[in-house]
Amino acid sequence: MDKGEVPEDANEHCPGPQAETAGKSESCAGCPNQQACGTGTAPNGPDPDLVAIAEKMATVKHKILVLSCKGGVGKSTFSAQLSFALAGMNHLVGLMDLDICGPSMPKMLGLEGRSCYKDNNGVTPVYVGDNLRVVSISFMHSESDDQPAIMRGPRKEGVIRSFFKEVYWGDHIDYLVVDTPPGTSDEHITIVNCLLDTGIDGAIIITTPQEVAMADVRKGVTFCKNVGVNVLGVVENMSGLTQPVSDVKFMKLMTETGSSLDVTQNIITCIRENAPELLDGVFAWSQVFESSGGGAERMCEEMGVPFLGKVPLDPQLGRAAERGKSCFEGNKCSVSAPALKSIVEKVIASIKMKEDLSGGENKETP
Amino acid sequence: MDKGEVPEDANEHCPGPQAETAGKSESCAGCPNQQACGTGTAPNGPDPDLVAIAEKMATVKHKILVLSCKGGVGKSTFSAQLSFALAGMNHLVGLMDLDICGPSMPKMLGLEGRSCYKDNNGVTPVYVGDNLRVVSISFMHSESDDQPAIMRGPRKEGVIRSFFKEVYWGDHIDYLVVDTPPGTSDEHITIVNCLLDTGIDGAIIITTPQEVAMADVRKGVTFCKNVGVNVLGVVENMSGLTQPVSDVKFMKLMTETGSSLDVTQNIITCIRENAPELLDGVFAWSQVFESSGGGAERMCEEMGVPFLGKVPLDPQLGRAAERGKSCFEGNKCSVSAPALKSIVEKVIASIKMKEDLSGGENKETP
Repeated sequence: MDKGEVPEDANEHCPGPQAETAGKSESCAGCPNQQACGTGTAPNGPDPDLVAIAEKMATVKHKILVLSCKGGVGKSTFSAQLSFALAGMNHLVGLMDLDICGPSMPKMLGLEGRSCYKDNNGVTPVYVGDNLRVVSISFMHSESDDQPAIMRGPRKEGVIRSFFKEVYWGDHIDYLVVDTPPGTSDEHITIVNCLLDTGIDGAIIITTPQEVAMADVRKGVTFCKNVGVNVLGVVENMSGLTQPVSDVKFMKLMTETGSSLDVTQNIITCIRENAPELLDGVFAWSQVFESSGGGAERMCEEMGVPFLGKVPLDPQLGRAAERGKSCFEGNKCSVSAPALKSIVEKVIASIKMKEDLSGGENKETP
Repeated sequence: MDKGEVPEDANEHCPGPQAETAGKSESCAGCPNQQACGTGTAPNGPDPDLVAIAEKMATVKHKILVLSCKGGVGKSTFSAQLSFALAGMNHLVGLMDLDICGPSMPKMLGLEGRSCYKDNNGVTPVYVGDNLRVVSISFMHSESDDQPAIMRGPRKEGVIRSFFKEVYWGDHIDYLVVDTPPGTSDEHITIVNCLLDTGIDGAIIITTPQEVAMADVRKGVTFCKNVGVNVLGVVENMSGLTQPVSDVKFMKLMTETGSSLDVTQNIITCIRENAPELLDGVFAWSQVFESSGGGAERMCEEMGVPFLGKVPLDPQLGRAAERGKSCFEGNKCSVSAPALKSIVEKVIASIKMKEDLSGGENKETP
């Protein structure tokens, strides 16, 4: 009995972007449709795309990739709030939403229905205030939002490349935040290939605490190591649900009928009458995703990458994201905003330290 | 000022699997490496893959796709528990994990480290008890689990096709549950192309309640309509966090120091001393994801597809998934198991009704 044939087929892991590029040009050699299907590379001379990308990236000081190896861990929410935070610190920020099949950035930044236009410099991003500019596939769509963007690999690669080579971010921006699709797949190889020559400051990997997510995040860390991208650190998102006790409902299960009775008011009244001091400034904390495996912090120790911190699952943050708002405005996200701010500060410090170590030839404009 | 060039490139939506197949064979016509890159189709006669797939699918009675248009909504957990539920009802069940970049099924079914083998009939699935058999890319890996499976589109298509044409499910199975990758992308076109000739009973779409997820799920419904796959219904997952009140911690924020004090015991003691009846059988319910837009139920009404029900975010269910267990065993998942059971019953009824309407020529074996 042999081991199934699928294994051999599935085992061809990519050892790095260069290898993939090389493999690609080899397997398509002789195909007259290389140009049309987007997989062709020029046989001689520099890749013209890379020249165009280098031109557009010349005005971008720092580049941060936001990765999540599993979907639905809050990667896009994090990217949006990271961008809001940096912009709020008076940095000029660009945000590139490369989640082509499920772009949620326009909603999370309150930019639904907006469009990008092209002028002599290239495609112009959509502005949020003075400091933040955004590009998303949604800004390019003219069809109904209900239509799925179904693209095979080469076309996706073409779209990602065009984002890098056509968008003009302005005379100068301090940070370009690149929100990538979930997973570590061919889109990520394309992104790294596009930016390899102009440099990436590093990747932030977002995860949730449970072991089943951790398995995926280990793959993400390995991916970054394989392709030579610095891991700025890992964020443990949805790390317990924290909310004001007044937002919790208490339901008593009536075993006779199977229905449940809302006893929230009874419980609050009981505490208020007997120990009112217990209600003031009290938050309810629940473990939503089990972290018995030690969560992201332990995984970071094991894999030798920085742990940036935990962000609790905060329904207020979800509401801010649904409404396209910054969580740093109006003190509403009292449990998540301080955690996010501390993480952003660590990221900035890490980038600055690396810059200082490399001789500071790229000192930030004041 | 023109609308950016990226738009035109990105707007080429696939009108259906047939069109994609047609487009593919056209754009690669003349390429000598069609076979090698997995994109080639035979110029004449039936696709030999489809013949092999039809042979393998001949022993499979019903096929259910599980889709989620957004990642991290609990699709794999649902697929695993759907399979456990069907197997627990004495059906013979196959589960195909096609989440090639992030396969979590082996962990969720307690099958880590297991392998598939090949015999004369084809690749044999891994068994969980007598009624459930499973195939996952993880069972094909010989490398470290930390290695990401990075595959460009054509190779991914090749792997998916090989799953359908090489796995032998046995003399007869009642249900094949196909857990798909998140999104509605080229993998999904491949899956539909593979199964179109042998028939798909329908797709179950998993989502979470918030509007930003709903936008993605509308795309999933549209995808199913475009490719001619029946939508069995939509499940609203993580629909509020429900847990025993004893699992909640109460923390008092000390404004002077910024630290927090655990007052859980004080609150429980206060209630026990003054109104002990309030503690018996009481659950805490929290809205985790905002559903002010009406959630999945309203979306289903708008789009004319069945709403299958809500499953609360249940930490016990998460724990069952982490441990590879069925939530229907041992009465531990008291808040999610009844909700899941009711959904599974609706799915079976819907498939049975369709079968009866079509004349019942495929009556289930007793």
